[in-house]
Amino acid sequence: MNNMDAFFDPNNIAVVGASDNPLKAGHVILENLKRIGYPKKVFPINAGKIEILGYPCHKKLSEIDDVVEMVILIMPSKMIFEFMGDLEARMQVKNDVKVIVCASADYAETKTEEGIRRQKCLMETAGRYGIRVMGPNCIGVIDNVNRVDTTFVETVLPPESRGRRSGISFISQSGSIAASMLMLGASQPAPIAMNKFVSIGNMADVDFIDLLEYLEQDEDTKVIGLYLEGYPDGKRLIETMARIVPQKPIIVLKVGRSDIGASAANSHTGSLAGADAVYTAAFRQYGIIQVETIGELLDTLQIFNSCVLPKDESMFILTQAGGPGIYCTDALIASKRLKMPLVSEETKVRLRGCIPEMSSVCSPEGYADITAAASVQQHADSLRAVLEDENVSSVAFITVLPKFVPQKELAEAILDVLKGTGWIHKKPVYVCIMAGNFVLPVRKALEENGIRTFNTPLECVRAATYMAQYACFLKQKRGEQV
Amino acid sequence: MNNMDAFFDPNNIAVVGASDNPLKAGHVILENLKRIGYPKKVFPINAGKIEILGYPCHKKLSEIDDVVEMVILIMPSKMIFEFMGDLEARMQVKNDVKVIVCASADYAETKTEEGIRRQKCLMETAGRYGIRVMGPNCIGVIDNVNRVDTTFVETVLPPESRGRRSGISFISQSGSIAASMLMLGASQPAPIAMNKFVSIGNMADVDFIDLLEYLEQDEDTKVIGLYLEGYPDGKRLIETMARIVPQKPIIVLKVGRSDIGASAANSHTGSLAGADAVYTAAFRQYGIIQVETIGELLDTLQIFNSCVLPKDESMFILTQAGGPGIYCTDALIASKRLKMPLVSEETKVRLRGCIPEMSSVCSPEGYADITAAASVQQHADSLRAVLEDENVSSVAFITVLPKFVPQKELAEAILDVLKGTGWIHKKPVYVCIMAGNFVLPVRKALEENGIRTFNTPLECVRAATYMAQYACFLKQKRGEQV
Repeated sequence: MNNMDAFFDPNNIAVVGASDNPLKAGHVILENLKRIGYPKKVFPINAGKIEILGYPCHKKLSEIDDVVEMVILIMPSKMIFEFMGDLEARMQVKNDVKVIVCASADYAETKTEEGIRRQKCLMETAGRYGIRVMGPNCIGVIDNVNRVDTTFVETVLPPESRGRRSGISFISQSGSIAASMLMLGASQPAPIAMNKFVSIGNMADVDFIDLLEYLEQDEDTKVIGLYLEGYPDGKRLIETMARIVPQKPIIVLKVGRSDIGASAANSHTGSLAGADAVYTAAFRQYGIIQVETIGELLDTLQIFNSCVLPKDESMFILTQAGGPGIYCTDALIASKRLKMPLVSEETKVRLRGCIPEMSSVCSPEGYADITAAASVQQHADSLRAVLEDENVSSVAFITVLPKFVPQKELAEAILDVLKGTGWIHKKPVYVCIMAGNFVLPVRKALEENGIRTFNTPLECVRAATYMAQYACFLKQKRGEQV
Repeated sequence: MNNMDAFFDPNNIAVVGASDNPLKAGHVILENLKRIGYPKKVFPINAGKIEILGYPCHKKLSEIDDVVEMVILIMPSKMIFEFMGDLEARMQVKNDVKVIVCASADYAETKTEEGIRRQKCLMETAGRYGIRVMGPNCIGVIDNVNRVDTTFVETVLPPESRGRRSGISFISQSGSIAASMLMLGASQPAPIAMNKFVSIGNMADVDFIDLLEYLEQDEDTKVIGLYLEGYPDGKRLIETMARIVPQKPIIVLKVGRSDIGASAANSHTGSLAGADAVYTAAFRQYGIIQVETIGELLDTLQIFNSCVLPKDESMFILTQAGGPGIYCTDALIASKRLKMPLVSEETKVRLRGCIPEMSSVCSPEGYADITAAASVQQHADSLRAVLEDENVSSVAFITVLPKFVPQKELAEAILDVLKGTGWIHKKPVYVCIMAGNFVLPVRKALEENGIRTFNTPLECVRAATYMAQYACFLKQKRGEQV
């Protein structure tokens, strides 16, 4: 597919601008390739050094005997003209380079004559040989399974998560947001190993549409996240997304929404943010999920990756804590989408039978407070009772974990209900374990087993709302009644 | 003041229902008193044990020779009748008990005849001797400086933070929200040691108004947080808050806002949530800050505690990262309160002189992107330049910290600008260091020095909006033009 594969699984990589100074990006890139365990050859291009981090240096790209499919550019951008001459020399002989990741900045995004001239030089040579270019002004590409990491963000994924991946792929127009998403993702109770991760920078060549089409075909991508400032052909972007959405959900964080924000976006990546209302309307029409915050982006990507879709908008609130339950109820009502289900009399009787005496069952309907006195068994039994009611399509499951509810046992009991009896494949359960760092062990145990957990009930409701929104969109698309 | 002081600094404490089983609340309370280092005597009441955790047990309250000013009740609630008989016996002789914290549940909140009878028994005896009662159905009281902790939430504050306090006092109608706030507070980069912390439960005696009046007089309380479900006399509650607000800001998270949420609140603490619109209108009229989420509650309490108020609604956005800067700009515009200031030509020239060449200065106005190339010095110099412009009343300062910006040096440089040159006492600076666990060291270093930091730009903007809202309220109150 136009060499695109070589971004995610290149046969050998050269790094132009490689440095032995640990504070330079040209050093961090080499470190990252080493840390992630890139299995093929890495060639630092540095005229003054013999080797860096154990990789033997070369003076020029054209001097490397081995095949080089990917070149990462991190040298000062004014050296682009010289480098392109050398690339030309190589291609005439070897014709092997398939992709360039231009991580340096100071190209067309500066809107200076010189910056534009540099980008033009880069693109002309690349275009002549069919080399695909990512950037300039980007932080690069990560493929965690093929063990490629061209970024100069210090690796944050712990070693045990490398080589794994989720079904989440992510494309960012901002390098900082991309870097933040990596760090926030790795800060989750169970770190997120993304599938394909791309910072696209100036989009001199590879752009949103190329990548969306690539991810559309990528079997490992289950859900696509976008951080979007603007795109010159908004209509084509939306058409591409609209075609993909029925197969793979797309979650978008769009910025430059206000006029002043759009003007800042223009200064940033030179992109025109486009009329925000037009984007928002199109997103809604085509079932594209537009989130409001970075936190929602991360939560929503994870929940789409880990949960089945609900069959409708009903969500039962099962809480061990009154205050958080009420807070969750308010948020559910405010979502204007989710509904609290009417469970059967049988379920109510069953619930009353398996939880502490002072519990409140279905007052209001679709709500049960099993109280702080609930044991691990009572947590699990009530969850099962609710899931088995056919009027319940999803569950918000909230607990605050008093000391006498041991975290390990609770995690095991929840896993037993959700994985053991297979509910995880039938109905989404949004698990909220409050609060903070003190419940990380139980959250980690659940997340490592594919059960996404949330910080507070509000985040549960937001994720559930987007899930229900997408489920409804698909039903409408299929002509079903919703 | 009606014995209220004894909740926060009691002369000796008896724990009725003390247990040697580490999984029981009656044990955790003793552990917490030990851990926080309560300096006076603790008397576990347990007829079957000789000592627990080194505290000698007594069979009955009436048998204790020493003074006992506080009694914590954590025995099964059906034993309240027997205990009240014993309390009566003690009071007739010693007349020393000033306060009861009734942590047990299963009183009037259950709305059963028996529960109501128990609460009545508790209140009758207490009332007869002028003993103030917190609860029932609460998690108790913490005073971190007097080293009192009557809760059965496992102590989460690290030892080095005990004995300190912030200016934040917090009153919660929900025990779980109270517990979550403790855990979330202790999970901050620098753990929050609250001033007075109270879970009020059923409010059989001490209620919101008693505590608000107490905190109004408390010199150590600078800002008051409330988690509110409902209060029987909403009018008096609002009047009390309105009287306090001009001296001390009050931040409220009100739940039971939807009709169904209100019905859940009624099942929970038996409180009537009251017409939400009435509360919201009153909060707005009297300058009471109503936050929307638990996260905002925590952020807002911290920012009011640590920052001076801005003189008006202008906020300069100084960012090292384009994407987050645009995201911040959108949020600022969406706040419909904050404004981006027009700085002087001199400031613009100065900014351009102290930051990387590709930076974008004041395009749009009130915004500068110092780019990922910015050094520690450039971070600090640009912050100082912006703060010194008289049209700037507050600053959102955003950075993503590439590897070559060392965290320790950045923290020192920011502290030098804010504390060293005293800007911290003149203008609020909302510091956002993205993202996740990987920037905790720099955030911790700043927070330990009284500079609150945020996760993402959105949280900066929300906190800044509430600060500006309160500042405007005070100006209006003083009859100044806003």
